[in-house]
This record gives sequence, structure tokens and C-alpha cells, in this order.
Amino acid sequence: MNSSLPTEMRASVLHAAGDVRLETRALPAVEPGQVLVKIAAVGVCGSDVHYFHEGRIGSFIVDAPMILGHESAGTIVAVGTGVPADRIGERVSIEPQRACRRCEQCKRGRYNLCPDMEFYATPPIDGAFAEYAVIEADYAFAIPDTMSFEAAALCEPLSVGIWSNQKAGVGPGSAVLIAGAGPIGIIIAQVARAFGATSIIVSDPVAERREVALRFGATEVIDPIAQDIATLNLGVDAFIDASGAEPAIRAGIFAVAPAGSVVLVGMGADDQRLPVSRIQNLELNVTGVFRYANTWPLAIELVSTGAVDLDDLVTSRFDLDGVTDALAAATHPDTLKVIVAPGAGTR
Amino acid sequence: MNSSLPTEMRASVLHAAGDVRLETRALPAVEPGQVLVKIAAVGVCGSDVHYFHEGRIGSFIVDAPMILGHESAGTIVAVGTGVPADRIGERVSIEPQRACRRCEQCKRGRYNLCPDMEFYATPPIDGAFAEYAVIEADYAFAIPDTMSFEAAALCEPLSVGIWSNQKAGVGPGSAVLIAGAGPIGIIIAQVARAFGATSIIVSDPVAERREVALRFGATEVIDPIAQDIATLNLGVDAFIDASGAEPAIRAGIFAVAPAGSVVLVGMGADDQRLPVSRIQNLELNVTGVFRYANTWPLAIELVSTGAVDLDDLVTSRFDLDGVTDALAAATHPDTLKVIVAPGAGTR
Amino acid sequence: MNSSLPTEMRASVLHAAGDVRLETRALPAVEPGQVLVKIAAVGVCGSDVHYFHEGRIGSFIVDAPMILGHESAGTIVAVGTGVPADRIGERVSIEPQRACRRCEQCKRGRYNLCPDMEFYATPPIDGAFAEYAVIEADYAFAIPDTMSFEAAALCEPLSVGIWSNQKAGVGPGSAVLIAGAGPIGIIIAQVARAFGATSIIVSDPVAERREVALRFGATEVIDPIAQDIATLNLGVDAFIDASGAEPAIRAGIFAVAPAGSVVLVGMGADDQRLPVSRIQNLELNVTGVFRYANTWPLAIELVSTGAVDLDDLVTSRFDLDGVTDALAAATHPDTLKVIVAPGAGTR
Amino acid sequence: MNSSLPTEMRASVLHAAGDVRLETRALPAVEPGQVLVKIAAVGVCGSDVHYFHEGRIGSFIVDAPMILGHESAGTIVAVGTGVPADRIGERVSIEPQRACRRCEQCKRGRYNLCPDMEFYATPPIDGAFAEYAVIEADYAFAIPDTMSFEAAALCEPLSVGIWSNQKAGVGPGSAVLIAGAGPIGIIIAQVARAFGATSIIVSDPVAERREVALRFGATEVIDPIAQDIATLNLGVDAFIDASGAEPAIRAGIFAVAPAGSVVLVGMGADDQRLPVSRIQNLELNVTGVFRYANTWPLAIELVSTGAVDLDDLVTSRFDLDGVTDALAAATHPDTLKVIVAPGAGTR
Repeated sequence: MNSSLPTEMRASVLHAAGDVRLETRALPAVEPGQVLVKIAAVGVCGSDVHYFHEGRIGSFIVDAPMILGHESAGTIVAVGTGVPADRIGERVSIEPQRACRRCEQCKRGRYNLCPDMEFYATPPIDGAFAEYAVIEADYAFAIPDTMSFEAAALCEPLSVGIWSNQKAGVGPGSAVLIAGAGPIGIIIAQVARAFGATSIIVSDPVAERREVALRFGATEVIDPIAQDIATLNLGVDAFIDASGAEPAIRAGIFAVAPAGSVVLVGMGADDQRLPVSRIQNLELNVTGVFRYANTWPLAIELVSTGAVDLDDLVTSRFDLDGVTDALAAATHPDTLKVIVAPGAGTR
Repeated sequence: MNSSLPTEMRASVLHAAGDVRLETRALPAVEPGQVLVKIAAVGVCGSDVHYFHEGRIGSFIVDAPMILGHESAGTIVAVGTGVPADRIGERVSIEPQRACRRCEQCKRGRYNLCPDMEFYATPPIDGAFAEYAVIEADYAFAIPDTMSFEAAALCEPLSVGIWSNQKAGVGPGSAVLIAGAGPIGIIIAQVARAFGATSIIVSDPVAERREVALRFGATEVIDPIAQDIATLNLGVDAFIDASGAEPAIRAGIFAVAPAGSVVLVGMGADDQRLPVSRIQNLELNVTGVFRYANTWPLAIELVSTGAVDLDDLVTSRFDLDGVTDALAAATHPDTLKVIVAPGAGTR
Repeated sequence: MNSSLPTEMRASVLHAAGDVRLETRALPAVEPGQVLVKIAAVGVCGSDVHYFHEGRIGSFIVDAPMILGHESAGTIVAVGTGVPADRIGERVSIEPQRACRRCEQCKRGRYNLCPDMEFYATPPIDGAFAEYAVIEADYAFAIPDTMSFEAAALCEPLSVGIWSNQKAGVGPGSAVLIAGAGPIGIIIAQVARAFGATSIIVSDPVAERREVALRFGATEVIDPIAQDIATLNLGVDAFIDASGAEPAIRAGIFAVAPAGSVVLVGMGADDQRLPVSRIQNLELNVTGVFRYANTWPLAIELVSTGAVDLDDLVTSRFDLDGVTDALAAATHPDTLKVIVAPGAGTR
Repeated sequence: MNSSLPTEMRASVLHAAGDVRLETRALPAVEPGQVLVKIAAVGVCGSDVHYFHEGRIGSFIVDAPMILGHESAGTIVAVGTGVPADRIGERVSIEPQRACRRCEQCKRGRYNLCPDMEFYATPPIDGAFAEYAVIEADYAFAIPDTMSFEAAALCEPLSVGIWSNQKAGVGPGSAVLIAGAGPIGIIIAQVARAFGATSIIVSDPVAERREVALRFGATEVIDPIAQDIATLNLGVDAFIDASGAEPAIRAGIFAVAPAGSVVLVGMGADDQRLPVSRIQNLELNVTGVFRYANTWPLAIELVSTGAVDLDDLVTSRFDLDGVTDALAAATHPDTLKVIVAPGAGTR
């Protein structure tokens, strides 16, 4: 461990629903095969907001103080045993997962489904609203000099967009319907465009969000209140839901052509009433996404080639002592992405 | 056309719900590329029963007299232009589809999803409860001498079983849960065994049906009334529903391992309440089957090698003038498959 | 048939090796399900040149007069039985295939492998160096007003490029090596770019061709004489050969990363000495392309969205009486694509 | 570490080509996540024989003393940190691989292609011709009581057979041609049968080997000296080569139907002259296998259900001091598999 490192750090800690405190903590220990990253930028995700307000997501309960934040980037400042020392100084985007590497899911390349996954900001694992965080060395991906730390942090939601489009089989010439023009829907649309989709229809009841969608890849937008998507005979190759809303999901399923794909990304009610006979008669393929696997190299490639624009998604920035404000800002209707900058420079 | 052929035939015609009449009809015309088959055996399907009782299935309405029956086999007695004359005399199993061959679905090998499909016993297309029927020459598949006409007729439901298992990705060593031990569930179990599945769990609330399942491939049976399948942590690779019942489908989805498959075969309510968060968190792949494509060669192979036993599924037989009785018998709890034999010999 | 049509047409007919004659022929008969197209533009392909010089390609021998040309586009002027009359006047790109639609290959969606294929300009089937040609209606694809007939004709080689990239699994972020910067290599590079490949390396010993490759999608070019590609450790995801040359193929195989793809497009010697132990140790997937299937809709989409540029590939144009000159021009080193325009306007 | 364990063990060590010595060595250290296995049975593989005679295989050179043997099974006698102590006493089959778990290949589920693989009996990694060996805990697979240690050891070549058939896409109804009826060819044939292949044609010039093939799954055998396989128009779905011989590979490629598979398993000359135009015209998929990934659970399942018979492949047995004799026996024409039993009981 680098002797010039401090022994303590500032971190924003969630103690209970609604109770986030800026505290001083010991620097996390760097295990063999890990790196210590000085965090430069952290995106605020809806799940952070949910944990903050509810103290839980489903069966994941915050019953001990935990650091939120899982969309992060920074600079490697120390390395664990077995990691080349010359990685110190490397600017990296963090894939916030630590799979067991030994179970069937891991060995089959589906490590996101590892039952022993440790994931940032999912109890009891600390996240990145802190000056430093540790991560497995192979989950810290070098970014080019031209990429901002903010964009590097947003490679996490971009990975959701990549994984969704891959699951949906989106490719050159595809027609895609995306429900929901929040940050994830916008990123999904951008990825669809980068993957060669030529018809990218985004539906959202909010006019401002539809406008944003048109700026970020949508070729067409629909107001699902004004138009009944289920009756439009869109015949798209894939429907990707980023809303979690049953009416949107139902309508989207009716928009898909035979043998097409339905990918459910948005988190909504556990149970939903789906048009099963439609799925059967058209042999639609319905699946969901749970995080992502092996997406970071492509995420960095898409950003660095300009195929996807993440920097322009950032609508506000906060320091580490402003996390409560950042969490509040994230739910503001004009907001796309909020960034917390634990250190000084975010470029 | 063979001059020794009659010009008329007997056929069992559905005129309206509950009204089936044995009538004399003109022999169907043999178009270029078609063959005329003297029908030897026809299986009775649940859809035949449904049309008989309701006069419709969903948006398919019997508004003109129609011949039911789509699980059929017989002997080629005449050939249309372009079909080799030496096929006359060939014993064949009939795939009762006539796709357009020109649309995108057809040209991509998914002809079962052809929007212009003409299918036996689906209004207004006549089926096979008749002495003769026509079919495209390439949809009449030669069967070996060792195969009975009854087994050849039942290659149709066997095709549903093949298609379901293929969609489910069942293979050597697979663990499969099948809900419903009716004829289709039993056939699905047999196909799963033939595909190499080593754990084949069949659930059905009826004890007698569970007994039958054990005779035809199930390695284990479950009474879903006595045991809550959703809580058994079965962790199967695939769940195939042959019940159409929402509780069975819901429970089955909870029985599937991460990245596993759910294939919905049974026809139930159009809308069903599904555990969407489970599908998302485990990235399950949910789809349905709509008939089948390219299954007949394998169906004939499975039967002729003894991997699947269709003959022992036949529990009763009727002549062409007994179609109403046959339709009634098909719903009897002790029944597996009912055969209508329009001609003399069914072997 | 439209009564305003002539009964005869001019056509450029190959009688024997080196012997092409402009002749008057009867208009081809339009069978049911076909359309008659007034040809506006035809690209010259290497296979046309080969037939012209040799009178054969492999086992395909020109033993009766035959019209060459299979990259074609024009306007529908008559329709056969079963084709909507309102297609008359439609500007179309022609997929020059007529599969049997009934064999296993056709029914599985691999109609390009149909053993009974009838293909333009492959003995004894006439091609499109003529004022008119017939084609199955579903193989005549409507093009947008904005697309030139020349680009529409070149959707044929574009389809080779699409099929090659699809077989190679090229997608967003892919690294691809392409050997040979002739017209097909250039088109393959353009498609790779359209499919999202970010590293597109083209090798060709001719400097001018390398320059052209850089204009049409290559991110990097290599002179295989100056550099031994096999030793560069390129580690590409896919290698696509458009040269047919054994040294290029061997070197390309050594450039592929583990589990990568090798797609052989260029026609060279029947037998080639391949590094089999390399294919085994890295589990490379080696395949070839034989024409294409289901590519036209995407081809038209790629051109009309500007993702692929075909118009700028045209380096010279000839009338129907200049076919011999066109065939000669096609082998000139400065040539990319030569167009024959049987009618007046090619836009 | 169990205190009742010895500190030393006997091992058969290869010092140089032709020089194998029975020696006393320290017990190997058990690292965290590993288990120590008391070896009960080890199969002799052609690669062991090759190392013994040549002191190298390709670029892998035995330049320091090394223990051969990589087909092994035994009983866990000690566990490393992090491994449940109750695994002591477990009878296991060993997958002799140790991948890095961190590279792209590992994380994509293709760990057999890991560039940092440590593999038993591949320099400088010791194998299992010894009383004890260490292996990663998740690569030691529990076997049922009913399975012999010899069969458990032979799950290694069985894994080659599984992987080959999986790469070849063999399934129910498949027709397969296998070249070479040595131990691997015989196992491939057994797996093909277990996977549902109904036509399993094995070619070998040795009559005795053809007889053996018929006992273990082949439905037909061919003497390639007496019959030219390339001209028989077999039209198989897949050709799997277990000979490594160029004439067999060439002939096999001509036996495959359009869109079929060619999987090269046998190790022969680095370079081979292949019929490339045939691969192109029929769009054959050619690949090789390099060991295997994720095959052990299925291997154990196939053996324990009786679908594959490994016990009857064993033709001779030797003690640890008979390794030189065992290596000699392995090349005897009557031999299928030779077992070395380092401990007492092999059941």
C-alpha cells in the first residue's frame, strides 16, 4: 500500500431511511487482486434514491450503515497483491461487481447471475459515495485520456443499455420500441442507434422527456396517453421497457412482430398481467435484465468513439457533503443524471 | 388424377356448435404440387372439441360448414402437377400446414408464423375427418412400414412436443418441469426423455394422470395441490407448461434456475398475472409455441427408433360416423388419445 | 401482360468464351408470382468476367447462349398471376435467386443452399444484361425514390458484404481484418463499419486499393508484402477473406483471437493448406459464404440511411452494346464497379 | 491440513524423453480454495505417451521433471482455506484445469481458452501419476457411490467427447460421421448416441477397431481404404474427426450436408490441405476443440445414468511403479484405455 495514502477518508453513509451522514472512515483494505480507487465521479441511480427513502429494496434491507453509489470512476492509487504496480495512476471506470468466479453461473460466463455476488451499495456492500473504494482489479477498466470521469462513471447505466439491447437482439436495421424516456430509456435509445437500429420509437407521457429522447437517438416519439400503442401495429423487432409500468409493458408486447423480443428493464410491480396468448401466438421471446456481464469494454468503446454521448446527460453536480441534495435532485423532472464528485477534479 | 378414384367421399362436417353431420362431398381438387391422401387415421385434439362445443376459438369462427381433424395420416392416391407419380401408394404422415412460402417469416424458416397460413380445421380450411384430404406434397412425409397410421397421425401432437422442447433448449442432462399430464404433457415428457433430459418432473392434480406420466417418461411427479411447487426450489433448466392454468404457470416460473427457460404451450386465459420481477432477476427466457416448423422428419425418427411411444397413447377408436362420440370421448378423464379411422384399416 | 409492352428486347448474349453478341430476343414470359422488370442498371461482377473469358466456372458450363449480369435494378412493367397490379411502376432492386421453396434448406430459412436454385447468369438461367428480365415478385424489392438504380443494382454485392459480416458475427466494438481491397473487400469494410466495428483493418498489396479502403470504412490498412500479418498478433474478433489467396487466408487465421471467426468469401483454389492446429487450439470458427439469404431489406436500409455508400463505387458506365468493353473495364486496376445501363436513364 | 496425512508421497516423474522414475516427493501444498485428492485411478492418454517419447508436444517442452497423467479421480483428504471441511472423504472426478478466472475468456465462459491456463501434465504443471494431487475445489466433482474411480477418471476423455458433440451441434435425429475408432472416437460415438443421434457412422481402416465401434454406439462402420467416403454422398449433419489424418479429414468434409458442421478433434499435422471451395459452397462450419469447458456435470450424469459406458473401455491396469509399462501398453493395437492405480483400491 502506498505510504503517501491517508489512513482515513470521508464517506457519505446511509444509516437508515432518510438518514445520510458525511463521516470519517478508515480506508478500505485492499485484498489480493484488488485495487484502491480514488473516486472522482459517481452517478446517482434510482436505486440509491430508493434505498435512501425506504431503507430497502425488496428483500435487500439496509440494517447496518452502508455507503450508497455504484456508478463510479476515478484513479487507481494502490494495488493489492498480484496486481501490477504500474496500474497506479490509471484512470478507470468501475464495474461495481464482485462475483465468486467459481459457481456454475460464473463459469458459464453469466457472472451477473452469481448467487454470491457482492455489488456496490447493495447491503451489506459499501458503494462509492466516498473518497476511496476498492474493486477487483479486472473490474477496473482503463479509460482513454479523452474520456471524462463523469462519462466513465456513467458507463454503469450504459452497461444496462448495452445488455438490454444485446438481449433484445438489436442490430443493423432493427426497429425498436422503448417505453420510458428517463435516463435509462435515453441510454437504451442511444445504444440502439449505435447498434444500427434504424427505427427507434420512444414512448413517454411527458412531453419534455420525449423532446430529450429525440435529441439522444429516438427517430420517433409517442405519447402513450394520446395514442394507444397496442393498436398501432408497429411491428417492431424488439420492445425494451424502461418504465416498469404494466400498461406500457402490455402495449409494448402488442407492438412486436412475430418472433420478436421483449426485454423488461424497468423495475415495477413484482406481478404484472401480461398478454400471454399474444406471446404464444407470435412466439415472442420475453426476458429481463439483471445488471450486466462483460459490457465494460464495449461501453468504453462506444463512448470514446462518440457513438454514445454520456457527458451531455449530466444535469447537476454535488460534492460529497451534498449527497442528500443530490438524491433529491435525482427525482426532479428536469433531471437526467446527477453526479456526486467526492474529490476535487471531475474534469 | 387416378381414374379409379371415386368422385365423392364421406366427410364429417361441423355446421355449427354441437352440430356435426356425416355427409357426402366431392373429392377435393388436387392443385399443382399437392397430393391426395386417403385418410387412415385421425387423432382428436382439444381444439377439435373446442370448435365442436363453441363454434369458434378466439377470433377463428366457424361461419361455414368445415371438416375438423388435423392429426392425420394415410396413403397417397393421386398427385398434382409436378409431383412424381411414384409417390402414389406411399404411406404418409400429414403436416397440416400450407404456408405462403413467400413472406419474411417463411423465408426465414419460421413458416409456422406465416400470416397467410392455411391450417387444417382452422376456418375456413377443411381438416381430415373425411375419407380423403389434400396437402402440399412436401408436407406429406413418408413413414416406414413399421409405423402404424395411428402413430403417424399422432406425429402432429408429437411435433408440438418436439417444438416445445427445442424452444426450451432441453438436451442431455437437462432438468425439466412439465405442468399438466394430459396428452400433450405426456408427449412433452417423452420428448424430453428422448432429448436426454435426466430429471423430468411432471405436475398434475389428478393422481391417475400422474401415474400415466410415470409410465411415459416422467422421472418424478408432483401433486400441485399437495405441494407448493413455487417453494420447492427445484432449480430446473426449463419449465414447459401444458396446462394453461395461471397458478401452474406462476409456480413453474419460480421453479426455474437462473438463465433458464419457460415455454408456454397450454392455451389458457389471454391475460395472466406473471411474476415479472422473478423473470427479471433470474433473466429467465419466456416464450410460447404456435404449432411447429420443420419437426416431421425428427418426429418420424423418434417414433421409428422407439424413442417415443405414440401407439400406446391411443385409448379408443371410432369410425367416421362416430365423430360426435369421438369428440365426447376425448374429454373423458381416462382418455389419452382418441382416433377416428375414416377408412378400413388403421393397422 | 401490359399491351403497351414490346414483344422483343435487346439482350447481350454470351455464346462461347470471348463471344458476346447484342441480339434481339423475345421478351421473357412472366410466370404466376413473377414480375417483369425493365432493367435500368446492372453491375459487372468478377463472375461475369470469368464466364466471358473461360465459358465456365467450375462445373457450371455455358453450353447454350446465356445472358450474363446478376447485379440489377429497374422498374416493374408487368406482373404475373397473383401479383398485385399496383406493383407496376415500382422501382426495384432484384435479388437474382429463385429457390424451390420446398426443400429442407428452403424451409429452414437457408434458401441460398437450395439444391434446385435458379440463379441469374448461372447456366442455363439468363441474367440481366438485357432490356427486360423476370424475377419472382418477392425477390423484387421496392427501393425509395432517393436511391439510384445503380445503388439498387449494387445491393447484390452489398448482400455478399452483409452476409459475410453476419456470418462473422461482426457487431458493435468488433475488430475485423479484411484481406483484399477489391470491390467486395471495400463493401465488406463498409458493412463492418455500419455494423459497429471499431477496428477495421484492410490488407492489400496494392497501394491504390489500400487508399480506397481508407476512404470506404477501413480504420487501418496493411501491405501484406511489407508486413507479415501472421506475426502481428492482431487478435481480431473476425477475419473475412475477400482475396481467395492462400497466403492471405493463412496469415488472416493467425490474426484471429480465441473463439473468433474466419469467413472465406473470395473464390480461390479449391484446395488450400490451412493451419489446422491453430484453428483447433484457439477454437476458431471457419466458414464460407455462398451468396446470401434474407439480406435485401437490410441492404436497402443501409444504403437509404447512408450507412453504406454504393454510388461512389461506380467508376465507369456502358450501354448494352458495350458489354464487351464493360467486361474488359472491370478488370482494370483503377476500376471499382462498372455499370451496364440497358435502358436510357440510370439517374 | 489433516494431521494424519503423510508428508511425502510416491510419484512417477518424467525427467526426459524415455526417462520416467518412481520417486518420493513432498506432498503438494494445498492453496486456499483447493483440495488435496488421494488419487485412485488415472487414465493414460495419447499426450502422456507423446511427452514420454518426445519430451515435448509442440511448443510445450518438458525441461524440468514433471508428473504425467491428467485423467484422474480419487478421494478428497484435505481442503484449503475457504473449502468446507465436510468435503473430506468425498469421492471426486478431477477436471485437471486451473484457469485464471479473470481474463476475457474466463469471464465469457470459455475458460478452456484462458491464456494463463495451468493444466495437469502440461509443462510445468504436475499431473496425477502420483499418490496425491491438488486441484481447485470447484474442479473436483463429487461422483455417486455407484460410479467407479476408473469411470470417474475417464470423465476427462468423455469431456472431450461431450465438447466435440456440443460443438458439432449433435442432437436428436442427427446423422454423424466419426473418423477414427480409437478411444476418443469410441467415446465420441457413445456421446453422439446419448445425444440422440440416430445415424452414427464410424470409419477406421482397422477391422478390430470397427468391431469395437459397433459395440459402443456406431450404427454403421466404414473401412476408408475399401470405400472412398468422399464419394458416398453421406450427407451427414456433422463430421467429427478423431484421426488427425488429412485424407480422413478431407473425405469427411465431402460427407457433410449443406450448413453442416465439421469438428476437428484429432491432433495431426499443423497444416492440412482442406477443400475450401466445398466449405464455401455448402457454408460448412469448421472448428476444433481445445480441451473443454463446463462438461463435468454432464459427464457424470451420462455415466451414472448408463448412457455412456466407460468401465468397459478399460483394457489393462498398472500400479504406480508400472507407468513405463502402462505408457507402452497404451499404444498396443488391442488397447482401448489403460489405467494407472496409484493407490490400493480402484473398485
